[in-house]
Amino acid sequence: MMDPVPSWARTCPVPIDEQSERISLAHGEGARLSRRLIAERILPRFASPDATHFQDAATVTTVGCRLAICTDSHTVSPMFFPGGDLGSLAVFGTVNDLAVAGSHPRWLTLSLIIEEGLPISVLERILDSVSEAARQCRVRIVAGDTKVVPRGAADGLYLNTSGVGELIDPVPPGPCAIRVGDQILVSGPVGQHGIAVLSVREGYFFDSAPLSDSGSVIEQVVALRDSVGPHIRAMRDATRGGVSAVLHEWATECQQSFVLSESAVPLTEAVRGACELLGLDPLYVASEGMIVVAVDPEYASEAVCALRSVKGCEQAAVIGEVTTRGICPVSIRRVLGTPQPLDEPSGAPLPRIC
Amino acid sequence: MMDPVPSWARTCPVPIDEQSERISLAHGEGARLSRRLIAERILPRFASPDATHFQDAATVTTVGCRLAICTDSHTVSPMFFPGGDLGSLAVFGTVNDLAVAGSHPRWLTLSLIIEEGLPISVLERILDSVSEAARQCRVRIVAGDTKVVPRGAADGLYLNTSGVGELIDPVPPGPCAIRVGDQILVSGPVGQHGIAVLSVREGYFFDSAPLSDSGSVIEQVVALRDSVGPHIRAMRDATRGGVSAVLHEWATECQQSFVLSESAVPLTEAVRGACELLGLDPLYVASEGMIVVAVDPEYASEAVCALRSVKGCEQAAVIGEVTTRGICPVSIRRVLGTPQPLDEPSGAPLPRIC
Repeated sequence: MMDPVPSWARTCPVPIDEQSERISLAHGEGARLSRRLIAERILPRFASPDATHFQDAATVTTVGCRLAICTDSHTVSPMFFPGGDLGSLAVFGTVNDLAVAGSHPRWLTLSLIIEEGLPISVLERILDSVSEAARQCRVRIVAGDTKVVPRGAADGLYLNTSGVGELIDPVPPGPCAIRVGDQILVSGPVGQHGIAVLSVREGYFFDSAPLSDSGSVIEQVVALRDSVGPHIRAMRDATRGGVSAVLHEWATECQQSFVLSESAVPLTEAVRGACELLGLDPLYVASEGMIVVAVDPEYASEAVCALRSVKGCEQAAVIGEVTTRGICPVSIRRVLGTPQPLDEPSGAPLPRIC
Repeated sequence: MMDPVPSWARTCPVPIDEQSERISLAHGEGARLSRRLIAERILPRFASPDATHFQDAATVTTVGCRLAICTDSHTVSPMFFPGGDLGSLAVFGTVNDLAVAGSHPRWLTLSLIIEEGLPISVLERILDSVSEAARQCRVRIVAGDTKVVPRGAADGLYLNTSGVGELIDPVPPGPCAIRVGDQILVSGPVGQHGIAVLSVREGYFFDSAPLSDSGSVIEQVVALRDSVGPHIRAMRDATRGGVSAVLHEWATECQQSFVLSESAVPLTEAVRGACELLGLDPLYVASEGMIVVAVDPEYASEAVCALRSVKGCEQAAVIGEVTTRGICPVSIRRVLGTPQPLDEPSGAPLPRIC
């Protein structure tokens, strides 16, 4: 896949030419070149007591005994997009999964699958993003791995981040606890990440270039926990498949239905315009810094207020409610017209969005 | 990379034809097809309290507070080889990293990067291997992820397994604790995995088809801990770059030198013959079920006895010792001739071995 213009090169902010130092298969052999790559390019970016040794497994000490564990591989294309890149996306994504599970994100692992021929400067740029995102989230990268595959056996670079967090009471019980009457909230405008990636991938030009919302949701989760903690049923970040995917999963778990109000869904002008132009429903488009929340109706207003106090979440809003299970697991009251089913997409037109 | 005869097909034990059901990009979109794939093909293989929900992060309870965390991506080619496959290799690899760190392996995550077009039956075969290996090791797969990339953006299937284990005292202090006089042991014949993969990859024919030693080292580690626990300096499984890579890393950490005795290194006839034929030094060839141990010299014999009581480790042996740092970090007394440097390979001829 490393043809003359690989998919990541078009939006790559690092200058590349024929003299650029590149990853070779030898970098993945576990021998001298591997060790030099790790010692010179990787470890220095993650300097911590756990990251100074060539050890396969890091040892850490947790204060409590209840943990959240998650994993995600990241294959976003292109690697660099407005508002982030593969590296920051990977860290924020895993941190967010730990946060919405009700935990304090603590430790991450970082595994690289690198295509032979990738310029080392591109790898370093991504690693810098990983390092900066981890610093922002106050998580430590404690273990890692590097594999190199031959040209054509990957598309530049894939990352896997796995994470461990310490559960903090009250822990949301999850979608099984969702009841009729519960309110559905979003913490901010939907679909920003998917539109940002799509715009650069397809070379669309918009009046206002859409930025991804890729970022940590820790502050949002903490604000909710501190204000209405025991009354939250479930939280999820709305990544692949957007808000629709989350609600369809929740509907399966709780065996109820969700009714949304289209006019209540917050959108940026950039996303609204792009979706209209492209014929996309923003409820199917990925976000990467926004969460969907199911909450006891008596505490919905308080939850919205708490979210709106977080920077970037000023448009947090109730967008729907839970009703007795009907024919449609998820439906929507359109601005014009009667309530319609919001189908679960069988395959969205947005592959490799995260 | 999904050409008419993809790299994994030649050794694939599952019958494939044009009617075989295949992975499509839609399987990776996070929508209906993704959920069906997970619900019908993935979750049932990992049935446990943690694996029955569509949750991004699993919650677990640990009895103590000191953990080992590790990660590995697996890109072995071909996917199926004598003695194992990508699935079993991934589980044993991560379990082994946790074991040699001095922990009881408890929870794994499993992340799949699947190339569009991979037959679903091949995926299921690999998942069966993952499930069986996890059962053998008594670890739980608690969280997962599935990404699909377009044809040509991966070579069939890549896995990432990350793991969490609970540290058990005494925990080996690591290579910094290695001292002059310490003995270097191996728990069994070296290089079996690398030769097995190479033999099928290159289509070599040997009198006795070499089997990979891919498997759990938990029993070996437990035997050592129970017999000579406090006297173990360090343990490592000798994967990429073989015994040589481990000792070069240790030499860097402890700033001493290692002298090996070629005649003491246990080899199977298959590996000995293949290495002679191919001009390979087995000390550079990967194992996947064998560990290298640095131990206090007074307890070396006891350590060897303990290892030899474990099935498959009957050839455990002392292969060298630690000396004051000389010019060469690692050297070897050949059967014929004087001691020679055992260089760290800058790039071994065995890419994508694990």
